[in-house]
Amino acid sequence: MRRSSPRSPVLRLDTATGTAVRRPDSLAAEEPLEVRVRALSEPEAAPVVVTMRTPGEDVDLALGFLLTEGLLASADDVAAVVHCGDPDPADPDGLSSMNVLQVTLAPGVPAPDLEGRRTFGMTSACGVCGSASIDAVSRRSRYDLSGDGVVVDAEVLTSLPDRLRSAQRIFDRTGGLHAAGLFTADGELLAVAEDVGRHNAVDKVLGRAARERLGGGWPLRGSVLQVSGRASFELAQKAWCAGVPVLSAVSAPSSLAVELARTAGMTLAGFVRAPRLNVYSGEHRVRLAPPAEAVPVVAPVATPVAAPVAVRPLPG
Amino acid sequence: MRRSSPRSPVLRLDTATGTAVRRPDSLAAEEPLEVRVRALSEPEAAPVVVTMRTPGEDVDLALGFLLTEGLLASADDVAAVVHCGDPDPADPDGLSSMNVLQVTLAPGVPAPDLEGRRTFGMTSACGVCGSASIDAVSRRSRYDLSGDGVVVDAEVLTSLPDRLRSAQRIFDRTGGLHAAGLFTADGELLAVAEDVGRHNAVDKVLGRAARERLGGGWPLRGSVLQVSGRASFELAQKAWCAGVPVLSAVSAPSSLAVELARTAGMTLAGFVRAPRLNVYSGEHRVRLAPPAEAVPVVAPVATPVAAPVAVRPLPG
Repeated sequence: MRRSSPRSPVLRLDTATGTAVRRPDSLAAEEPLEVRVRALSEPEAAPVVVTMRTPGEDVDLALGFLLTEGLLASADDVAAVVHCGDPDPADPDGLSSMNVLQVTLAPGVPAPDLEGRRTFGMTSACGVCGSASIDAVSRRSRYDLSGDGVVVDAEVLTSLPDRLRSAQRIFDRTGGLHAAGLFTADGELLAVAEDVGRHNAVDKVLGRAARERLGGGWPLRGSVLQVSGRASFELAQKAWCAGVPVLSAVSAPSSLAVELARTAGMTLAGFVRAPRLNVYSGEHRVRLAPPAEAVPVVAPVATPVAAPVAVRPLPG
Repeated sequence: MRRSSPRSPVLRLDTATGTAVRRPDSLAAEEPLEVRVRALSEPEAAPVVVTMRTPGEDVDLALGFLLTEGLLASADDVAAVVHCGDPDPADPDGLSSMNVLQVTLAPGVPAPDLEGRRTFGMTSACGVCGSASIDAVSRRSRYDLSGDGVVVDAEVLTSLPDRLRSAQRIFDRTGGLHAAGLFTADGELLAVAEDVGRHNAVDKVLGRAARERLGGGWPLRGSVLQVSGRASFELAQKAWCAGVPVLSAVSAPSSLAVELARTAGMTLAGFVRAPRLNVYSGEHRVRLAPPAEAVPVVAPVATPVAAPVAVRPLPG
C-alpha cells in the first residue's frame, strides 16, 4: 500500500550552471480507487466508478462522488463504507492495496440508477450539447440555489485562495496537488482537501462536509467552495448537487461552467486574485465595500462656481 | 453551435479601489463531444466516449483518443470521420451541435473491444492498484520505448515551455486552456493544441501527428511531448501508446506517472522551468552541456605535491 507522498530519486539539472544533483523527492501519489455500491436488497455490490486519486480521505471521496453526481441524496443513505481487504498482488507482505471501497446503503435505499450513464470516460455530460448536459444536471440536482440569500464580502472571497494555500501547504510537499476548501460566508474554513484530480479534491471536501454535517448540514446552504485551479462544468455541477451557492476559482471558468451557474442561480467567481476578482454569475451575492484606506474627503471652502456657459454658434 | 472562445459579460471587482466594471470577456469554450465508432461489418456505430472538450480539432481529438487508449493501432485503421448532422435542439436555426463524431473504420478493421472498460468515469485505470493499471497499459501499448536512442539537450527541454506558451498565446485569450506540443529532439515544433481538458489537448496533438504523419509517422519515435501542466498517469499512458520517448511537464508528475515511465522506458521530465528541470526517469536521453559562459580553467603553475602520508597506527 502506497501513501500520499512517496519519495523517489530525481535528477535535478541546472543548464545555467551545468550541474546535476541526484536527490530523493516527494511525489504526489496517484492510485486508482474503485467504488462499489451495494443495496441491502442486492446480493452483491456493483462497481460504480474507478478514479485516479491521491490515497487518503477515501470514504469522503466516495461519499462526495455519490452525492455530487446525484446518485445518492444524503449521507443518511449510507449505512457503512469499508475498504475491501483483497490482498495487493504487488505488495510483498500481501497487504491490501486499499484501492477498493464498498459502500453499503441504508435499509430501504435502492441501488443508484447507473443506466443513462455512458461507458468509458463519461462523467458529467449526459447529452451531446451543452444545454442537454445542463438539463441532465438540473434533473440530478435536488436544490434550487436561487433562493439562497447569502451575501459574501468581495474581500472575504479574495482572501480565500491564500487561506486555502496555507491549509494546503501543511500537506503538499510535492507541488502537484489540486486543493478545494469549503468556507462559511464569513470566510471560516470548514474543510480542506487535496488530490491529483481537481474533481476528487472537490468530492473529498463535500463528502466530508456531508459526513460531519459541517456548515449547518446538507445541502450546504450559505457556503463558499474555493478551488485552486479552473472552474469546469464538472466542478460547477458538483457544487450545484451539494447545494453550494458560491463557487470561487483562482483561475478561469469555462463557458459551460458559466452557463450552468446562471441556470442554477449559483454565484461563480473566477480569477480570484487579491485585490481583484471576476464575477460571472449571481453578482447579487457579492458585496463590494468602499476601500478601507480611503482618505475622508474634506469639504473644501465654498467657492463661487462659474455658471456653465451655453455654447452657441458664432454669429455671422 | 458555439465556438472556441465565446464572449460573456463579466463584473470585474477591485477591492483595493472599491470599483466594479462590467465588460465582455472571452471564455474558454467547453462542450461535450461524443465519439462513435462503426466497423464496416456492423450495422451501426457504438458510442465509445463522451468527453468535455473545447470545440475544434475534433477529428484529431477522436483519432488521438482512439490511438492513445489502445483502441486502434494506426490512422490507417480509419476510413472516415464525420460530424453527425443531428440538429441541436438549443440552436434557434436548427443547426447541428457538431458534438457527435462518427468514426468509420477501414475495411477489415474490427470494432474496438470495449469490454474490460468499466462504466462511468473510467478512463485509464484497468485494475485497482497502480501496478495493475500499468500492466493494463503495457498490454495496450504496442511500442517498446527503451530502444528509442534519441538524446535531447537539457537546454532544448527548458526552452519548450516558453515556445509552447508563445504558440498558445495566438489562440488562448481566456487564460483557461491547457496546451500540449509535439516537438522534435532539436526543439522544432511539429504540432500544438489547446483544450479545457489536459488529456484532450494531448489527444488532439497526437491525433494530428498520426493523421498528418508528422515527425516521421506513427509511432512518434524520437519526439518530445511537452505539456503545460502536470504529468499524470493518464498523460504518460497516452505518450506510451503513441510511442513518444520523452514526456516533459511544466509542473509535477504523479507517483504513478513516474512508475509508468520507468516501466515503459520513457524519459519523464517535470518542473521544467528554465534554467532548471527534474528528470524522474530515462535520464540517459537528457544531455547536459557545460555552461556556455564557463571560464576556461587556467592550468596552475606546477607545484610540488606532497606525497600522501600513509596513516599508520601509533606505536605503543
